[in-house]
Amino acid sequence: MATSTGSDSERWQIYEVVLRYCRGLDRNDKALMRSAYHADGIDHHTGFTGTADEFIEWLTPLWRDYQGSMHFIGNHWAEIVGDDAVVETYGMSVHWGKLDEDGKNTTNGFRYVDHMTKRDGLWAISERWAARDWTRSDAGRYVPKEAEGPTGTRTQEDPLWVLKRKLQIG
Amino acid sequence: MATSTGSDSERWQIYEVVLRYCRGLDRNDKALMRSAYHADGIDHHTGFTGTADEFIEWLTPLWRDYQGSMHFIGNHWAEIVGDDAVVETYGMSVHWGKLDEDGKNTTNGFRYVDHMTKRDGLWAISERWAARDWTRSDAGRYVPKEAEGPTGTRTQEDPLWVLKRKLQIG
Amino acid sequence: MATSTGSDSERWQIYEVVLRYCRGLDRNDKALMRSAYHADGIDHHTGFTGTADEFIEWLTPLWRDYQGSMHFIGNHWAEIVGDDAVVETYGMSVHWGKLDEDGKNTTNGFRYVDHMTKRDGLWAISERWAARDWTRSDAGRYVPKEAEGPTGTRTQEDPLWVLKRKLQIG
Repeated sequence: MATSTGSDSERWQIYEVVLRYCRGLDRNDKALMRSAYHADGIDHHTGFTGTADEFIEWLTPLWRDYQGSMHFIGNHWAEIVGDDAVVETYGMSVHWGKLDEDGKNTTNGFRYVDHMTKRDGLWAISERWAARDWTRSDAGRYVPKEAEGPTGTRTQEDPLWVLKRKLQIG
Repeated sequence: MATSTGSDSERWQIYEVVLRYCRGLDRNDKALMRSAYHADGIDHHTGFTGTADEFIEWLTPLWRDYQGSMHFIGNHWAEIVGDDAVVETYGMSVHWGKLDEDGKNTTNGFRYVDHMTKRDGLWAISERWAARDWTRSDAGRYVPKEAEGPTGTRTQEDPLWVLKRKLQIG
Repeated sequence: MATSTGSDSERWQIYEVVLRYCRGLDRNDKALMRSAYHADGIDHHTGFTGTADEFIEWLTPLWRDYQGSMHFIGNHWAEIVGDDAVVETYGMSVHWGKLDEDGKNTTNGFRYVDHMTKRDGLWAISERWAARDWTRSDAGRYVPKEAEGPTGTRTQEDPLWVLKRKLQIG
């Protein structure tokens, strides 16, 4: 069992690193996504290995093929020793195309295995392994919403950005 | 990137606001669900916009058509500035009818985008946008349990309430 | 609404108890899984009731029939009063066999309802009810990965263990 030395505040900071990655990717804020990594951060993904900059460049055209994505995270465990941490975060990433583009509708089960480091007081990813556990097709399962209402988008009109602008938070 | 001023304790309090909503809805404790909002709280949902009181009134007959629900939450990010917070919480809501009522079996992917405020020391929702990201049919996928065991209910016999009564907690 | 007396640090400790169970089970570290319970811990599961030791013994052959599992947790609410806590954790457990063994591909929706106690300063499970809310077949839905990349395993070669050994953390 791990012996962890980090403070509770550091746990929240480390959790927010993962949140920045997910929100940045799902809402199309590449600067936010990029901020989850240190300048020299490395990423190992299904079909890719290289720097964080190269990863985002590689991902961008693939990501445009989808109508949206949701990088949903659960179990989050940061084992902190000094300025290093091993951080495991369980995730399910839901990707959808248009309703008639079934091939694009998949959910992946994965775990982000992150080596995070603290530099100048800021935690970020030095190296990530996105370990894919399973891949499920959701072809033919998506259906239209039953009524109108707030909807997620990749534009500045997503309810999140609208509220943040209104309250001048963030 | 947001600059947040809240304390770690406030983060837990804000997280519990969302937990109260989910447990209240899934376990049929409307007072608990209602307590997630301030007295004048507003909710924007798929097919509904209005006060929290009106929302619960609107939801009740719809909700009776299901055998159960699970409002499962993941990514939770509270950006706190003074007594205001923008709080985004990712969720998947699983709804099931009886095993032969396939039309009712759906899972929705959403994000709660909440404007929470602190009044008299208590955080709660002032205004919520439940942004629906995707809707998936689970028709034909539910199967019976393979054996007997603890089961979720909407009654006072759910294992959670039984344990809370036994330990006199809550 | 519950009145909770625990500190923020205790909340993290209690959350890690649940994390130990999930990682131990998914990564095949039975000692880690066992450490989530006190020595005399009790577990009530679908198809089983008995001590934690008996539970792990009962589970082991069943678990070998699967290629892998993911015990994905969300909503986590610890209501702490002194050295007792009622802890509810929502979960979805994804189980997969080989790609052509469809009968084994199921996802279960459940809630861990845990009576945790603090003894000698350590929180662990005294009694658990794993309340099954729904059972979904994923037969015919799993597909191969689209490319090579980091993969979850039950062996010492999982990226998590590789990183922990490299950094000598844990």
